[in-house]
Amino acid sequence: MTTATICTIGDEILIGQIVDTNSSMISQALEAVGVQVVEMVSTSDDAAEISSTLTRCANKSNIVVVTGGLGPTKDDITKKTIAQLTGTSTYIDNPAQLAVNSRILAARGVEMSDINRDQSRVPSTCRVIVNEVGTAPIMEFILNGALVFSMPGVPFETETALPKIIESIKSHFTLESICHKTICTFGIAESTLSKMIESWEDALPANMHLAYLPNSILGVRLRLSIYGTEKAAGEAEIERQIASLEAIVGDTIYGYGDDSLQKVLGDILLERCATVSTAESCTGGKMAELFTSVSGCSRYYWGSVVSYDNSVKINTLGVKKETIDKYGAVSSQTVEEMAAGVRKLLGTDFAVATSGIAGPGGGTEEKPAGTVWVGVAGRDFVASKMFSFRGRRDININRFASHALNFLRLNILAH
Amino acid sequence: MTTATICTIGDEILIGQIVDTNSSMISQALEAVGVQVVEMVSTSDDAAEISSTLTRCANKSNIVVVTGGLGPTKDDITKKTIAQLTGTSTYIDNPAQLAVNSRILAARGVEMSDINRDQSRVPSTCRVIVNEVGTAPIMEFILNGALVFSMPGVPFETETALPKIIESIKSHFTLESICHKTICTFGIAESTLSKMIESWEDALPANMHLAYLPNSILGVRLRLSIYGTEKAAGEAEIERQIASLEAIVGDTIYGYGDDSLQKVLGDILLERCATVSTAESCTGGKMAELFTSVSGCSRYYWGSVVSYDNSVKINTLGVKKETIDKYGAVSSQTVEEMAAGVRKLLGTDFAVATSGIAGPGGGTEEKPAGTVWVGVAGRDFVASKMFSFRGRRDININRFASHALNFLRLNILAH
Repeated sequence: MTTATICTIGDEILIGQIVDTNSSMISQALEAVGVQVVEMVSTSDDAAEISSTLTRCANKSNIVVVTGGLGPTKDDITKKTIAQLTGTSTYIDNPAQLAVNSRILAARGVEMSDINRDQSRVPSTCRVIVNEVGTAPIMEFILNGALVFSMPGVPFETETALPKIIESIKSHFTLESICHKTICTFGIAESTLSKMIESWEDALPANMHLAYLPNSILGVRLRLSIYGTEKAAGEAEIERQIASLEAIVGDTIYGYGDDSLQKVLGDILLERCATVSTAESCTGGKMAELFTSVSGCSRYYWGSVVSYDNSVKINTLGVKKETIDKYGAVSSQTVEEMAAGVRKLLGTDFAVATSGIAGPGGGTEEKPAGTVWVGVAGRDFVASKMFSFRGRRDININRFASHALNFLRLNILAH
Repeated sequence: MTTATICTIGDEILIGQIVDTNSSMISQALEAVGVQVVEMVSTSDDAAEISSTLTRCANKSNIVVVTGGLGPTKDDITKKTIAQLTGTSTYIDNPAQLAVNSRILAARGVEMSDINRDQSRVPSTCRVIVNEVGTAPIMEFILNGALVFSMPGVPFETETALPKIIESIKSHFTLESICHKTICTFGIAESTLSKMIESWEDALPANMHLAYLPNSILGVRLRLSIYGTEKAAGEAEIERQIASLEAIVGDTIYGYGDDSLQKVLGDILLERCATVSTAESCTGGKMAELFTSVSGCSRYYWGSVVSYDNSVKINTLGVKKETIDKYGAVSSQTVEEMAAGVRKLLGTDFAVATSGIAGPGGGTEEKPAGTVWVGVAGRDFVASKMFSFRGRRDININRFASHALNFLRLNILAH
């Protein structure tokens, strides 16, 4: 199997100032085309450290992907260090990158300085992949027989460069063919799901691999990969396996690939020409944030009332004071009145409401922190359900909001 | 200087399934006591890989902090591999960890199995630090002269174990004394701020170091560190420098240390016995989410109306239809009416409102994506301000919400 190491360079990573998200992004792109990542390493902006790490990585794997250390300041020494490792001190102009840089600087209203001009010059030993969204070019070297890519550490620039790097890797190596499909499930915990589908999983062909990707908002996604078959045959086999899986887990599956609950809910609402609103207590705007994270949501998402204080539940949403006094703010009755109230107030077809205790404080014996009631309302129904979790405040809020969205999804589908 | 390497073990990191947030958390804790992190590395659940990586790290640094690979399943081989590296195959019971595990399993309603019991057994070559929040003990070894800690990869367990590890490090090494203080600023971009304070920064004592920590929600935080002085003298010198800094940047500074805009706003509101509400269009619940991320916020934060659709702005918040028709939804007039409207609707002392274009779609020549109007209202004032950014949708939303909170802060302080 073709192997890769990922090397991120920069003191800001080592002192814990930023979390390295590039490595995970790069790894996903490499794994998707069948390249196995065998190590990730972060090193400082120090020439000796960079040299020894890159040499070690080049000896260990077929491909080395390097990010960072390409800025215009004197701290950034990746380019110079790789030039030395590959035995050159000659730098040449790259007119294509220079043209991009002129355009970027002009848009910022900045004049090109010598420092900017130097950024587009590259060691004579490299092939350039033009960076269309930043001023530092992506460079491709051969070091000790390994294919080495050096690219900027700005996540947006790394993300934009990745497809071109994958293309170059495909031209250098004969990669084992691989097909993936991700199945998005919600509402069943990873351990329970794994028991439910155990016999299906055990019966998968030997060249098929299943990965569990649990997430507090997206649910448990299952990534099915098949190795060493032709594309059409691989995809057909994956679809066959998914059909058997669907028979076991049913509407626990809410989508495929990059789907999210809010995206899928949007599609369902658009298909029905229906609109939705939200009323949020404990989730404090998280449901609204999820809905509005989808570009174009204004066609079906009309808004939310975040009723953190009970006075807002009563005066704005029209929840009866007696309901809160008798059953409490965290109750089936309250969330159903919240959902019906916001639906009427904002004039939407459907509505979903949450009231719960995110923690760490505020819990009781009967309703411990992590308890949430979710209510939904439509033209001719209201429904509610309780969920319980044990997590940190932010994780609980994520789970409350995503379970509410899924409860809404199931109720819309049922009506 | 005492040096450390951080080693995370687990296939889930290498295939990009999870982002490694532990390394950054550990690094911050080490840096705070003056230990310099010289490398971070992630390796697979493979005995040969773990052995060679740990040996290399132990030879390179005084301390090696290892996380992951301590689960109960057969994939997890960190403990066995370190036992072999330190020359033992003898495992001994650890009664303190066993007692914790009995308690944890009982709380989950699970009977203790042999697998659970084995988790609390440790190689004879280690000293145990009891894990109070999980079933895998933290182990401390000496390998090739380096102090090696092995702990679980679950971030919450890592976070809980860190203070005990720092304590042990302090007992083994004479660390250079170091004092830090973080100054939280908002509203001035990193490059502009750096120009503004250039002469102050150049005049800092040689044993003082300044780090810029920019963040789309927290603003630009400045971490001032002083090395090699006594604690009291170091802290006094830091305060002296901060006093000169305050004279330059004024109310751009909103707090210190772990402060956030929402935390500081909460403190200001509590001090004045005042309440606040929010009306959000483009931020879609993000301001509400920030306010409600502070435990105890229900004393001053009453709620939000997310008025994504104009009908909600008009019917619920009472924005005049003519205002939107004449000036547009993204205008000074609309956000001032939104702020005044939500303040009246929810009955709070102050209110803040946003309306803008988060992008990528929806922009015009006059109001491009990244434009936001922020309005605030109090008992006897309304005010509004426009901000412009150029970023991704999610980053723009973060910036819109945090600039709105800061504009509210400055207006409350001024009234």
